[in-house]
Amino acid sequence: MAVSTIYSTQALNSTHFLTSSPSSSSKQVFFYRRQTNRRFNTIITCAAQQTVVIGLAADSGCGKSTFMRRLTSVFGGAAEPPKGGNPDSNTLINPQKQYADAVIEVLPTQLIPDDNEGKVLRVRLIMKEGVKYFSPVYLFDEGSTISWIPCGRKLTCSYPGIKFDYAPDSYFDHEVSVVEMDGQFDRLDELIYVESHLSNLSTKFYGEVTQQMLKHADFPGSNNGTGLFQTIVGLKIRDLYEQLIANKATAPAEAAKA
Amino acid sequence: MAVSTIYSTQALNSTHFLTSSPSSSSKQVFFYRRQTNRRFNTIITCAAQQTVVIGLAADSGCGKSTFMRRLTSVFGGAAEPPKGGNPDSNTLINPQKQYADAVIEVLPTQLIPDDNEGKVLRVRLIMKEGVKYFSPVYLFDEGSTISWIPCGRKLTCSYPGIKFDYAPDSYFDHEVSVVEMDGQFDRLDELIYVESHLSNLSTKFYGEVTQQMLKHADFPGSNNGTGLFQTIVGLKIRDLYEQLIANKATAPAEAAKA
Repeated sequence: MAVSTIYSTQALNSTHFLTSSPSSSSKQVFFYRRQTNRRFNTIITCAAQQTVVIGLAADSGCGKSTFMRRLTSVFGGAAEPPKGGNPDSNTLINPQKQYADAVIEVLPTQLIPDDNEGKVLRVRLIMKEGVKYFSPVYLFDEGSTISWIPCGRKLTCSYPGIKFDYAPDSYFDHEVSVVEMDGQFDRLDELIYVESHLSNLSTKFYGEVTQQMLKHADFPGSNNGTGLFQTIVGLKIRDLYEQLIANKATAPAEAAKA
Repeated sequence: MAVSTIYSTQALNSTHFLTSSPSSSSKQVFFYRRQTNRRFNTIITCAAQQTVVIGLAADSGCGKSTFMRRLTSVFGGAAEPPKGGNPDSNTLINPQKQYADAVIEVLPTQLIPDDNEGKVLRVRLIMKEGVKYFSPVYLFDEGSTISWIPCGRKLTCSYPGIKFDYAPDSYFDHEVSVVEMDGQFDRLDELIYVESHLSNLSTKFYGEVTQQMLKHADFPGSNNGTGLFQTIVGLKIRDLYEQLIANKATAPAEAAKA
């Protein structure tokens, strides 16, 4: 059962999608574990109805491998890139966008007027509203429109600074929330400061996003919104996975009681 | 001793200043009470060094009376306008701006493009940093730069909506924080929603700003930033007054111990 599928495509550099569409692509990554303890449900069978499928598709050079390494790390496994490739992914991306639950779009910065270097990126995390087990990340006040420049009296940043935007929007006629980060992190305190002001991150402890980002500081995009949002999407997928597993384990137990 | 002085002048409609300048104007309003209990210090003598002076100056029609009624209400007295007037206030305002601790500026809205009606106001509360007993109000994250449109999924507003801005700035070479409100309140839930997201309001209980605004809903500007910021400045003055009084009462007691 394809519960969630992650795609990745290219705006300026890359875009990722997490979809709950049952449609399959040739680039699906399966996470499954054999069930040994029915009570705590930390381990499940890989029978068809118990399998959680997480798929990923993206254009070449868009960060599929990096994203999968971040995701594997969030799930607690060793961070190693997936085997093989997907030569057909380019043709699969655009038709799938409408089914996406989460999209990471990479765009040129707006912090540097007429920027030609393309070194500083503006990255958007587009999250569908109303998806079971998936609560979009928000900044300060859920459902309102906010722009935030964290750099100021409490946090100093080097040029051109960091800017966040958060707003409700629509995407392929779906209601979505969009969190955008323009700029890049230069120091650890910038990263933890930003994490502390984002909500619904699905972290298991304060600072887990920062911990994951630091753990893989050598991965591409670890100092900008691509790394931040890949890490966050990894945490959201873990959360969704755990809720799905818990729900599946409860359902048969309750059916047995009845 | 002139501890704090409030002035009011005109941008579009009115501007108020709360200054710690020792300079005096002809429009000073004195709050003093005779001291009967040294321990709790709720009542003080009106000896020169124990008097707290709150002065107010503004151009004609700028809301001096309204502000004083709000302030009196916050202090717990009957809300009645001060006696007499100040025919010379116009010439006193501009030279005093540089000494202001807080300024309320009233400007045209930016929510309606090319607005000619002037019914919707954009109001700025400019607060000096580093003033003893006076902590500037902030929105979401102290010291950063934020714009916030509260109207969205959780709060619906009628046209043209409400927009807040918060940022550090400088004013007459002083470091200040500026909170700006553009638009107006149509419903009670808008007011309490906004109050719940402002910090350092010096309220004594949750919703005190809203309670004061509702209590005087018939006062001019009660549905926009002039009423909101007049009420907040009233609360800040009460807080400053109470800290001053507490400090003055503690100092002689400690001197007696030594």
